[in-house]
Amino acid sequence: MKVAVVGYGTIGKRVADAVAAQDDMKLVGVFKTTPDYGAILAARRGYRIYAPDDRRENFRKAGVEVWGGLADLISEADIVVDATPDGVGAENKGLYVKAGRPAIFQGGEEADVAEVSFNALANFESAVGKRFVRVVSCNTTGISRVLSALRLNGLGIRKARIFIARRGADPREYKKGPINDVVPNPATIPSHHGPDAKTVLGDVDIVTVAVAVPVTIMHMHMAYIELDDTPSRERVIDALASTPRILLFDVKAGYNSLAQIVEWARDMGRPRGDIWEVAVISDSVTVNGRELYLMYGVHQEAVVVPENIDAIRAVGRLADKWTSIEKTDKALGIIAHGKRYG
Amino acid sequence: MKVAVVGYGTIGKRVADAVAAQDDMKLVGVFKTTPDYGAILAARRGYRIYAPDDRRENFRKAGVEVWGGLADLISEADIVVDATPDGVGAENKGLYVKAGRPAIFQGGEEADVAEVSFNALANFESAVGKRFVRVVSCNTTGISRVLSALRLNGLGIRKARIFIARRGADPREYKKGPINDVVPNPATIPSHHGPDAKTVLGDVDIVTVAVAVPVTIMHMHMAYIELDDTPSRERVIDALASTPRILLFDVKAGYNSLAQIVEWARDMGRPRGDIWEVAVISDSVTVNGRELYLMYGVHQEAVVVPENIDAIRAVGRLADKWTSIEKTDKALGIIAHGKRYG
Repeated sequence: MKVAVVGYGTIGKRVADAVAAQDDMKLVGVFKTTPDYGAILAARRGYRIYAPDDRRENFRKAGVEVWGGLADLISEADIVVDATPDGVGAENKGLYVKAGRPAIFQGGEEADVAEVSFNALANFESAVGKRFVRVVSCNTTGISRVLSALRLNGLGIRKARIFIARRGADPREYKKGPINDVVPNPATIPSHHGPDAKTVLGDVDIVTVAVAVPVTIMHMHMAYIELDDTPSRERVIDALASTPRILLFDVKAGYNSLAQIVEWARDMGRPRGDIWEVAVISDSVTVNGRELYLMYGVHQEAVVVPENIDAIRAVGRLADKWTSIEKTDKALGIIAHGKRYG
Repeated sequence: MKVAVVGYGTIGKRVADAVAAQDDMKLVGVFKTTPDYGAILAARRGYRIYAPDDRRENFRKAGVEVWGGLADLISEADIVVDATPDGVGAENKGLYVKAGRPAIFQGGEEADVAEVSFNALANFESAVGKRFVRVVSCNTTGISRVLSALRLNGLGIRKARIFIARRGADPREYKKGPINDVVPNPATIPSHHGPDAKTVLGDVDIVTVAVAVPVTIMHMHMAYIELDDTPSRERVIDALASTPRILLFDVKAGYNSLAQIVEWARDMGRPRGDIWEVAVISDSVTVNGRELYLMYGVHQEAVVVPENIDAIRAVGRLADKWTSIEKTDKALGIIAHGKRYG
């Protein structure tokens, strides 16, 4: 499966690396609009750079060879991953339709850009053979994984109320805030994450409330979930621990804050310090009758990357759900719990 | 040369990795006081862990094998790198003296802990064959490299006035501030960095002023330097660009802020996103007669790491200055300018 990555920012560059790491797909090139250091590093990795026709001269001046324009890149691929800024994917869709190429969009697009919204644990099968699939956003991915972990382990959900402290900006977004404020984001309730989670989880009673805080490293969710049953804490911990792409971090091992979890990822030698897994603060997992409380971190730069790879496989019918999840995770170096693959 | 690393925090863990990457020294073990995730990851890397006798049980409970106590580790090494918190190095020194082992201390110790303070570019030779050497702190290392780059290229310094926006804490220091403040650090002038720089640069007229800001990624220095001569800007740029462990970053390539330089390091696949080089904002390099202005970033977690390796070589007489610098840089993956080695 020949894959084009359109948009080479926070998500695009990571998806490109992840595609290049798989043995059943090939990165044919990336489309980038500015000849900055990102373009230079991509070229140095051996990725073919495609750029807008009217900017090729700028790329050439920066020493970056350009292999063609957007239409050229699309025509050389079997599938496109569109990781452009919010709304640009919808504008690009016409080109993918015209070229007869399937495409994966990101969560910044409206749900109706695609036939189906996607999270590997929640609804892999619904994307199989589809032409247009949208990977839900980082926060929605976090929610979908945690709620799926419960469901997959027989813990039905009566309702979920999730309170999100969003990172204000990505590390490289030096102009974006807030820097000393807490911003209702949005002020209206629910935030878009709850309804968005329903696009992959189906009928679930979920309300989300979100604020933005002066942080660039990760989101933090504080979840209150009412279960059908009254499980032990151990059963919930086991459900989380046995699910791929969820990791548990104990305060007693030194994980006192999200920064410590980031430090772990750096010490692990992960590329860019990426945390592809949902990072559950294990000490926070509390069960009180039907009530479950927990906190978990979501690395906004990385968490959707494995989902994009699985979405490619679903569209291309390259593998079934658990085979794809395991394959993606092994190729990326995601920590395997070993229980729940297949 | 068998090397022990005592203290396995921000600097110690990086020095351990750097030692392990050299072909003329061997890491015999690391001394650590808490069995947190850092200990677990160190053990997984194959490093032998040494711990205080009264805490061995805690390490064992965390699944970390302990090879002995501090005295055991010291006795197995030819040299010790002490990377313990400020002041602990001086307390440990008696053990090194007693065991007859030379030691490298960090800049958090007072200068009199050692026979000589050290920066590879500034005064490698003065550490050759010494028993106790102190690598100056991250900020002082940055200053020493920039002023050495000028001197090594024939640009004499009349005076240097350097204004420092210090990072408030390291990324993992979740309890440390400031978070919304600018703190004179110290309020008295000069800050310790100026006098400290003289310990490696010798007689230079330098005054430093420092504030702490709500940042964890890097320090930023704003330097005003009066030169003996009136060089062209190009000559200064060439002096900086031709000196090892100094890199130039252009705003037009997308390096608009320190976070962008960190992003570059992450995209480069560097371990922990480390930036061992002084990161000069090239657009800031301004020459006006004898006056030179520039801004540069200093990655507090990483910048002293290559200096520790060179200090080991100086003490052990393993290599001369330029051979050691080149060897260290190649082993770590530091970008070589190719001009100034030897």
